[in-house]
Amino acid sequence: MPVGTLATVKGISQDLLEDLGAQIILGNTYHLYLRPGVETVRQMGGLHGFMSWPHPILTDSGGFQVFSLNELRKVKEEGVTFRSHLDGSSHFFSPESSMDAQIGLGADIIMAFDECTEHPADHRRTLDSMELTLRWAARSKKYFEQHKLEVPWKLPGATQSLFGIVQGGMDLALRKESAERTIEIGFPGYAIGGLSVGEPRELTREVVEATVQHLPADKPRYLMGVGTPEEIVQYAAMGIDMMDCVMPTRAARHGLLFTSEGKVSIKQTRYSKDESPLDPNCPCKVCQRYSRAYLRHLYAANEVLAQVLNTVHNLSFYLDTMRRVRQSISLGDSPQFLTVAKASNNADQLLRNKS
Amino acid sequence: MPVGTLATVKGISQDLLEDLGAQIILGNTYHLYLRPGVETVRQMGGLHGFMSWPHPILTDSGGFQVFSLNELRKVKEEGVTFRSHLDGSSHFFSPESSMDAQIGLGADIIMAFDECTEHPADHRRTLDSMELTLRWAARSKKYFEQHKLEVPWKLPGATQSLFGIVQGGMDLALRKESAERTIEIGFPGYAIGGLSVGEPRELTREVVEATVQHLPADKPRYLMGVGTPEEIVQYAAMGIDMMDCVMPTRAARHGLLFTSEGKVSIKQTRYSKDESPLDPNCPCKVCQRYSRAYLRHLYAANEVLAQVLNTVHNLSFYLDTMRRVRQSISLGDSPQFLTVAKASNNADQLLRNKS
Repeated sequence: MPVGTLATVKGISQDLLEDLGAQIILGNTYHLYLRPGVETVRQMGGLHGFMSWPHPILTDSGGFQVFSLNELRKVKEEGVTFRSHLDGSSHFFSPESSMDAQIGLGADIIMAFDECTEHPADHRRTLDSMELTLRWAARSKKYFEQHKLEVPWKLPGATQSLFGIVQGGMDLALRKESAERTIEIGFPGYAIGGLSVGEPRELTREVVEATVQHLPADKPRYLMGVGTPEEIVQYAAMGIDMMDCVMPTRAARHGLLFTSEGKVSIKQTRYSKDESPLDPNCPCKVCQRYSRAYLRHLYAANEVLAQVLNTVHNLSFYLDTMRRVRQSISLGDSPQFLTVAKASNNADQLLRNKS
Repeated sequence: MPVGTLATVKGISQDLLEDLGAQIILGNTYHLYLRPGVETVRQMGGLHGFMSWPHPILTDSGGFQVFSLNELRKVKEEGVTFRSHLDGSSHFFSPESSMDAQIGLGADIIMAFDECTEHPADHRRTLDSMELTLRWAARSKKYFEQHKLEVPWKLPGATQSLFGIVQGGMDLALRKESAERTIEIGFPGYAIGGLSVGEPRELTREVVEATVQHLPADKPRYLMGVGTPEEIVQYAAMGIDMMDCVMPTRAARHGLLFTSEGKVSIKQTRYSKDESPLDPNCPCKVCQRYSRAYLRHLYAANEVLAQVLNTVHNLSFYLDTMRRVRQSISLGDSPQFLTVAKASNNADQLLRNKS
C-alpha cells in the first residue's frame, strides 16, 4: 500500500496512482487530524471525496506517529497527551477519539488505537504495554461498532472495517499471547504492529514469523511499516497479505531507486552520461521514456520532476513485485517465488497458508 | 511556449506536456550551459534526446539570464564575462560561443546573442546597446550558417533555424531602426527582446505595438518573456505569433491560478471547504477531478502535488487560451477575439496581418 500521509502520495497525482495499479493507499490519521483536520475532510466527503480516490483507503490509528514524533507524549489509561510537531499545541488521543477521527476520515479499513512499544523494552514494560493495547483494542471495537459509517462509494450497507493490532515487543511468548487475545476480541483483519522501531532486520523477521502463525489464515494479515522489495516478498511468503511502507516514496525523494538489478543511487556522477534506462526490465513510464543521465540531471539540479519520476518508478517496482507475488501464489509452484520463500525457510508454511 | 529552464517544465513530465497539447517548449541556454553542460546534452542526443521530447524546442541565447542574474557582468565588443549564480565561477559568452552552445543543445529554433538593454536607459546608452546587438546579430548569423546542425528527429536535411532579436529599449524610433536593420541581416523569424525588464505594462504594450508593425507578417514574430493570459491575447491581436513566459509555471508554484473567472490565490482560507472545481469552465484534468478545498490543502501543507496540479492547470489555461486565439484567427471574425483586439485598438491591424 503506497503511503499517502496527508491525503497525497507525495508528488503523484491520483490519475498516476490508478495508472500504476495501486489498489489501496494509506492515510495517516495523526497528520490528517492536524492538517486539514478531520472535520474538513468529513465535510468534503471523507478521504475518498476529499482527495478524489474512489478506491480502498486504510488509515492508521495515529498511535505510531504519537510514538515516533513526540518525545514528550504522556500515556495514561485513558489515552495519550501529545504535542503537535507543527506548532507544539497540546492534543489528546484515546481509543474513542482515534475511532472518531478515523470514522470521520471515512477510510474503508481503520486501525485499533494501540501503544507502539519502544525498543528495547524489558519484560515488565512490554507486558504492561501489551495489556494496555488489549484494553484499548476492546474500547476501540466497542466505540467503532456504535459509530462506524457506511463507505459511501461502495454497495449500500457496506461499512468501514476495524482491524486489531498485535503488540508484544520482541518477546515471542507475548506476541503469541497478544495475537490470541486480540483474536478473542474479534476483528475482520489483524495487523502486526510495533516493528520497524529500530530493531535489527533479522529480529523483525523472527518476530513476524513467530506472530503470523497465530493469526487466522482466512483473514487479512497486515504487517505495518515494512520493508525493502526483498523483505516484502519474504513476508508474503510467511503469509502476510498487506504491507505499507514509506520506503519506495521516501527513498525516491533521496534518489535511491529499486531495480531488478539492485539499488541505484541516481545522484552518482557515473550516471551523468548513461543513456540506458534506469531498469531495462521495468515496464514503467519512466524506464520506457527517460535515461539514467536525465534522471541524474534532474536530481542534481534539485528539480521537482526528479521526485515525481523517481517515485513513479519505485512505486511501480513495488507494485509490480507484489503483482508477481500474487501471481506466484495463484500458480502455487512458481520457482521464482519458491526460491525466495525457501531462502526464508518458509516454503512449507507458504504452501500451507496459501494453497 | 511553456518554459523548461533546465530541460524540464518544473514538476511536469513530458507525458503530461503532450497531454496538455504543448507544441513547443523553451530551454534556457544559460542554465543548461551551467547544468548539466552543453557537452553532456550534446552527447545524450541534444535536448530532444536528453529530455525525451520529440517535438519542437526553442533555446534562448543566454543573454537575458546574463543580464538578469549577474550584477557583475562585464560587456565588451567581443562578448560578456559573467559569474555563475551557482558557484561564482567565471564564464564568457560571445555570439560565437552562444551559437556553439545552442547548436550543441540542438534546439529547432535558436536565438541570436543580444544585449538586453536595462531600463531605464538614456538615448545614448540605448543606441549603443542596440548597435552592439546588431553587430552581434551579424556575427551570430555568420557563425550559425557555418555550424548549424540537422535536427535529427525531423525530415532529412531540415536544420536548426536562427531568429534575430530586435532591441532599442523603450525608444520607438530606435525600435523601428533595430527592426529594419535586423531584417536587413535576414532571419527566418524575428523576436522582440528587451521587454519585461521592469517597465510599466502599458509601456510594454506601446513598444510591442510600435515594433511589430515593422516586422514581416509572413515570418514568425516572437515576443519574449510575456505575459498574463489577457496580455497574450492582446499581443496575438497585434500580430505576435509566439510568446514564452514563466508566469503560468512560476505563479502555480506560488499558488496563483488563472481561471475563466479571474485569478485565484488558492492559499486563502476561504477555499478550505470549497468543494467546487478550481475553474468550472476548464476541461483540464485538475478541474475535472479535484476541489478547491483539496488544492488549498495541498498548498497549505507544502505538498509537492500542489505544484504539480497547479502547474497542470495554469499551463492548460494558457495553452487553451492560445488554442482559442488560433481558432478565432482562422475564423477571422470571432466576436470574442475581436472584442479583445478592439480593446487594444488593433482589430484592423489584426485583420490586415492575419487574414
